[in-house]
Amino acid sequence: MPDLTRVFNPKTVAVVGDKKASGYMWLKSLKTFTGNLYSVQLDENEIPGIEELGVQNFKSLGEIPEPIDFVVCAVPRQVAPYIVKDCVENQVGGVTLFTSGFAETGEEQGRELQDSIEKMAREGDLALIGPNCMGLHIPELGVRFNQDQPSGVKGDVGFISQSGTHGMNFSLTGAAHGIVCSKLISFGNGIVLEAADYLDYLADDPDTKYIGLYIEGARDGRRLIEALRNATSKKPVVTWKGGQTAAGSRATQSHTASLATDQAIWDAIVRQTGALAVDSLDEMIDVIKALRLSKPAAGNRVCLLAMTGGQSVVLTDAFAKEGWDVPILSDASLEKFGEFFNVIGGSYRNPLDMAGTVSQDPKNLDRILDILNDDPRIDALAMELSATFMARRWADKPEEFERLLDSIKAFQARSDKPLITILHPSHVEAAALDARQKLQARDIAVFQSFERAASAMAKVATLRADNG
Amino acid sequence: MPDLTRVFNPKTVAVVGDKKASGYMWLKSLKTFTGNLYSVQLDENEIPGIEELGVQNFKSLGEIPEPIDFVVCAVPRQVAPYIVKDCVENQVGGVTLFTSGFAETGEEQGRELQDSIEKMAREGDLALIGPNCMGLHIPELGVRFNQDQPSGVKGDVGFISQSGTHGMNFSLTGAAHGIVCSKLISFGNGIVLEAADYLDYLADDPDTKYIGLYIEGARDGRRLIEALRNATSKKPVVTWKGGQTAAGSRATQSHTASLATDQAIWDAIVRQTGALAVDSLDEMIDVIKALRLSKPAAGNRVCLLAMTGGQSVVLTDAFAKEGWDVPILSDASLEKFGEFFNVIGGSYRNPLDMAGTVSQDPKNLDRILDILNDDPRIDALAMELSATFMARRWADKPEEFERLLDSIKAFQARSDKPLITILHPSHVEAAALDARQKLQARDIAVFQSFERAASAMAKVATLRADNG
Repeated sequence: MPDLTRVFNPKTVAVVGDKKASGYMWLKSLKTFTGNLYSVQLDENEIPGIEELGVQNFKSLGEIPEPIDFVVCAVPRQVAPYIVKDCVENQVGGVTLFTSGFAETGEEQGRELQDSIEKMAREGDLALIGPNCMGLHIPELGVRFNQDQPSGVKGDVGFISQSGTHGMNFSLTGAAHGIVCSKLISFGNGIVLEAADYLDYLADDPDTKYIGLYIEGARDGRRLIEALRNATSKKPVVTWKGGQTAAGSRATQSHTASLATDQAIWDAIVRQTGALAVDSLDEMIDVIKALRLSKPAAGNRVCLLAMTGGQSVVLTDAFAKEGWDVPILSDASLEKFGEFFNVIGGSYRNPLDMAGTVSQDPKNLDRILDILNDDPRIDALAMELSATFMARRWADKPEEFERLLDSIKAFQARSDKPLITILHPSHVEAAALDARQKLQARDIAVFQSFERAASAMAKVATLRADNG
Repeated sequence: MPDLTRVFNPKTVAVVGDKKASGYMWLKSLKTFTGNLYSVQLDENEIPGIEELGVQNFKSLGEIPEPIDFVVCAVPRQVAPYIVKDCVENQVGGVTLFTSGFAETGEEQGRELQDSIEKMAREGDLALIGPNCMGLHIPELGVRFNQDQPSGVKGDVGFISQSGTHGMNFSLTGAAHGIVCSKLISFGNGIVLEAADYLDYLADDPDTKYIGLYIEGARDGRRLIEALRNATSKKPVVTWKGGQTAAGSRATQSHTASLATDQAIWDAIVRQTGALAVDSLDEMIDVIKALRLSKPAAGNRVCLLAMTGGQSVVLTDAFAKEGWDVPILSDASLEKFGEFFNVIGGSYRNPLDMAGTVSQDPKNLDRILDILNDDPRIDALAMELSATFMARRWADKPEEFERLLDSIKAFQARSDKPLITILHPSHVEAAALDARQKLQARDIAVFQSFERAASAMAKVATLRADNG
């Protein structure tokens, strides 16, 4: 097994084969790299454009005057073996093969090229990522494969993806939801290094507190199980499998030449290794959000705080369906609520229907949260932030929304109970996005629907219960 | 049963009890009303403010110089019986009681007040909507109960809601997704008129082509079943029940004093009456979108068009899980695709992974769609619109996105097969919203996730199959 330390901590990066026709996608994405960035390009017509980007170009890897920690190879498939050979000879820290057209095409030629590359890399002990992938994204070091990915920030989620798009979307959509990667690996066909190798690395990576994994199939199932078991013993691991159905499994063959693991077997693996399973990017982001921003609940009894009665009903259905208990509050709580709660157009037994009470006097929210903090029948709180309030009341009185945020933060500071929020974008998508960013800036978990909140919180509760 | 024709086609509206403290919410919402709007308010302190809004105020309903078709009653609960009495005596077309504080409070006083109002309305044959509700929204006539609701447009969806918030959110979020109501009724406690009455009316309403229903409980189950059966024989009916769980059912009592129908019984009712069931507002909007904008598919064999390989895999899983068949294309199609499709980083057996091919030459999309139109193995098409394309490529070349829209519209014009699109907002929420509005303006169905698209299209296919 090649050592991955250099490639995950690069001080030098070289891109082989970037060109104008592809919009210099690699060199432009890597312009945020904190170390030295080089280009390797033989085509005289391409060199001036590369130099205009301020990147020094060489004719071969060997000509670069310092050792290269990470190589991006973006050449056509016929040229790829020569670059891999060069990587071995120059003892680079690792190489990612963006190049595709190998086993995933189903063509004989692609399969043969792939075999020769694999053989060379294995014999040369080369850390080869891919082929048919996007490689590495390390925000802290400005290593990126897309120009919209964050840089200069240190994240805490390690993400391993057999799909370049899912890896990219996790980094982009995740960032829009306040989640930044420590290290992200898109590994495509995974002919040398595969998911298990990256799991082993991230399990011991001190910057990585949570691991996400998108996988289609593993060459060595036993190794993957061991790596999952090892990783889950150290940090939460959330898995998402592509190719869950017969048709989806056929699609994985054209995508990464993977024989998708049978779903029933995969489910058993997830269960036995103590990982979590999700079925979409949205779920992946929701669950990681819940892991990062919600305290562990002591039990499954939730108090639901809605603005209006209709929402209180469907919010309750959503949580109850996910196994949450929505109990009537303690007698002491009911008595205290009875003193000030507006019951005309409101109710407080749990769920709460509280718009009237909170609008009457904003201090009432603190009062409500205090009562729930003291209620021994309640382990967790989930609060609706209403889009219609967002559209009118909070648009007119932004200080009232700020006050609400302060109340939530103050509760989170003094209480051991998790409190999460739900804000459906509804018809005020721009305002809801702005509000979401305010919540995220304060590290308050906010979900986009009752169902998504209930599901993510339930999955996380299960994971925490299983892993003690 | 009171006749509902006048109240649903009002030429005159009177609001009783609107005031400054509530922001004149009723008079401001109704400023778009196409007929004559009046106010009834006794409080001398409130009258100048009302007249400043340009609304003529009277001291009682009887003083208004013309018959009133629709009354909004926004007085405190103790005053409500007097207004209901006035409505009977003045033979108004109908009245909605925004007033709450009745049986839903669980208090004796509230129950008694409700009983007296019910008795008066029944004896006076008064079309009483509510109490504890938002009443009517008729966009074409500018009848609204929220200032962000559309007006001056004629919609085709009748929506009946036991919850004011769900009714309001359907009209607001629906409008943001291109769906406008013909008539919307929020009926709260439903003590005189209930869901069955509105179903009967909308079943025969020529402006209403689709019916949506949010319900918590029915007083007369047998009548509701008959009304559902009658309505589904004339147009599609999509139902959403609140109080599906024990805890949710408890919440309905505080909300609309409803004893929620047992969920197993409700499921049987839905099945037997040929209605559809959904579980959230998002699902309601998705299904109505699919009904309005997708042609009926001849069968369940779908071709999935994704931009990248990873998306092609999870798009396939999402549709296959919802019962869609994702077959390999016909030999004739495969042969034609083999002539031009880019298989390095792409594939075409179904699902399609087509970014490379379409980017190479935009005409290739028309070619792809033509081949699928001719393929006898395919009944329906679902196409991913990529957020990362939206962020970069289409942002730089908006004409390329316009061309894509033209290709979709041209296909829809020449093909009998439904074609729907999916655009996840991802990290480009503003751009995705803009793109969604462009799609909606062209009556192209666009869903926000693979799962939501697959589910809505499957539900609609079931409904259409069941109802022949």
